[in-house]
Amino acid sequence: PALPAVNIATAGFGSYGAQRDNLLLLSFERSAPCAGIFTQNSIPGAPLAWSRQVVASGSARALLVNAGNANVFTGAQGEADVAALATQTAQQLGCQASEVAMASTGVIGEPLPREAFSAALTELQPQPSGAASWQAAANAIRTTDTFAKGARRRAKTRQGEIALLGIAKGSGMIAPNMATLLAFLFIDARLDGQRLQTLLDRANRTSFAAISVDSDTSTSDMALAFASGQRLLESPEDLDALGVALTALCEDLAEQIVRDGEGATKLLRIHIKRAGNAEQARQLARAVAESPLVKTAIAGEDANWGRVLMALGKTGIPLDPTKIEIAFGAQKVTASGMRAPEYDEAAVSAYLKNPEIDLWIDLGLGEAEARFLTCDLTEGYIRINADYRS
Amino acid sequence: PALPAVNIATAGFGSYGAQRDNLLLLSFERSAPCAGIFTQNSIPGAPLAWSRQVVASGSARALLVNAGNANVFTGAQGEADVAALATQTAQQLGCQASEVAMASTGVIGEPLPREAFSAALTELQPQPSGAASWQAAANAIRTTDTFAKGARRRAKTRQGEIALLGIAKGSGMIAPNMATLLAFLFIDARLDGQRLQTLLDRANRTSFAAISVDSDTSTSDMALAFASGQRLLESPEDLDALGVALTALCEDLAEQIVRDGEGATKLLRIHIKRAGNAEQARQLARAVAESPLVKTAIAGEDANWGRVLMALGKTGIPLDPTKIEIAFGAQKVTASGMRAPEYDEAAVSAYLKNPEIDLWIDLGLGEAEARFLTCDLTEGYIRINADYRS
Repeated sequence: PALPAVNIATAGFGSYGAQRDNLLLLSFERSAPCAGIFTQNSIPGAPLAWSRQVVASGSARALLVNAGNANVFTGAQGEADVAALATQTAQQLGCQASEVAMASTGVIGEPLPREAFSAALTELQPQPSGAASWQAAANAIRTTDTFAKGARRRAKTRQGEIALLGIAKGSGMIAPNMATLLAFLFIDARLDGQRLQTLLDRANRTSFAAISVDSDTSTSDMALAFASGQRLLESPEDLDALGVALTALCEDLAEQIVRDGEGATKLLRIHIKRAGNAEQARQLARAVAESPLVKTAIAGEDANWGRVLMALGKTGIPLDPTKIEIAFGAQKVTASGMRAPEYDEAAVSAYLKNPEIDLWIDLGLGEAEARFLTCDLTEGYIRINADYRS
Repeated sequence: PALPAVNIATAGFGSYGAQRDNLLLLSFERSAPCAGIFTQNSIPGAPLAWSRQVVASGSARALLVNAGNANVFTGAQGEADVAALATQTAQQLGCQASEVAMASTGVIGEPLPREAFSAALTELQPQPSGAASWQAAANAIRTTDTFAKGARRRAKTRQGEIALLGIAKGSGMIAPNMATLLAFLFIDARLDGQRLQTLLDRANRTSFAAISVDSDTSTSDMALAFASGQRLLESPEDLDALGVALTALCEDLAEQIVRDGEGATKLLRIHIKRAGNAEQARQLARAVAESPLVKTAIAGEDANWGRVLMALGKTGIPLDPTKIEIAFGAQKVTASGMRAPEYDEAAVSAYLKNPEIDLWIDLGLGEAEARFLTCDLTEGYIRINADYRS
């Protein structure tokens, strides 16, 4: 799990007491073309605007991330803090401040503890990445996450096998669009920044933009991809191979985020089939994924499939009830606009005891499909969020 | 609390065991002009289509409501059940089946137990309404409601004082639009059905369409208004007076529904001020009201006001962070795009211990306002809904 030319250092500056690191500095040995996707929340944090500029410039030399304080709604002071910390990082690494991407995640509205941050940063000297330091990096960016999230993939290209590695954080405040989490993706190859952006946009559609924990869209979150390697990928075939691997990498990380959804005990995959069009398929899948009543029924292992119908219907999208076929796993639930004759509640209830549940919804209208991941809604979610800050 | 010319009977047919009545039959001594608002869910229940027809015809002689089974997604059998029960009611009362409005609320997707329903209906002989029978009526339409909901108002008209009385049910699966609950409104006067519809639409806007418990839109719900009295209201002044009273009546019932939100321990009133336009004001208020993270913070009495900003921002509506002023009650939280200098967390936390909380959000952009009611999101909501059917 070492990635050439990527160096890592982590430290803690107190947001989580002495419990664990909450600061990550990652540097690239050469300028890395980069791409990004940013939250659509209209009150974004100060680091967002900064990292947008870095992505717009096309390449980066470093990534600085802290957990515990989101530096959102912190006014001119928040912007000054970002600029000062990027400048300090650049001085330490010998690059330009405009080459330092930044991300922060945590509590909104509290001033960043800049002195403690800066003191911890001073100590950081990134070292060549390896299994232990990637683990440390994934841990340092966690907030309410209960486990560190990382994934690897390989793309077979004419330049040889290319390694891709990603880390992510996210557990609550997770909903499209985008990027309701932090995800950092590293590619051991070089390619044009615009092309990387296109591949990232495509990967995002079926991964980070197709998950929801609680329908709340963070102010802080982003996915950044860096092409920090040496081998140049230019041919359409090689870019395709990379794109497939990047999508798989992002889908893996996205699923990890849902598995670690705050309070989650079950993973629910919603598959919409034969919808009228792609946008409707996506809206319907999302409505089911975000319905508190569907999610609490899953938590209770209760075969209350009527709530799935309710959630489909609340979109207002025209549906033909007589054509809707719903199944939990292989257990058919509805047919011809009512409960299926072969419906077996005991069998459905038994299926719902699984930790992973596939919900199939065939609308019988067209050819469009969509898939959306979510988790159940439990008392654990309430406990975590009713008292997040203390 | 008697309303002239309105007769009431209630009974139980087993959906809630022997615990309580779940069947209401209400009859009018003369044909009552009526108006209705129906759920926008695109998979409505069989009684919805029936009652739409009754409202379209302009008047009703009776209202038949059951709780425990929603008769939704029950196919042709569900429609036949509705027609048969309306016909039986009409025979018992000596009117037309097309004059019997119907509503059902409860589990989705299970066939209506028509025989038990019909047998219980046979026994019902509505008697002149009084305090006890209105109480019984409000009780009979409950599902997860923990208390019966009713309200009264008086309108001063040139025809004398007009009494208005309403009952409602609703606790979960509550969101606009409309009508995410059952509400039945009775007016001791007579007026044209079209005019009644106009007054009801207006009353709905600031009452039932401005509350949310969990953002889920029911398949079954409706608000029906009946003008069952004798005195004819025609003048604009009298209709205005009636409209004001009807709006107050609906707002009272709507607030009762939120107070009884599943698992709720607190009522949260969200006041949006100086938004760019009315539609944006409403969307912003609704986004805050439906954010699980805002609602869990309120449950935890945690002054995590950053989540209010997150919820405003997730609408994507353009905002100027430097102009947003947020206050909990009289406690100012933000100013000039950051935490207000006078912010006092201890004082805000103390305020959040109240059972009713006013959240003021001044956007500093225009003149539009909106108000939205919601409740906190607690472990009680999860417990109620994880195992609703058993």
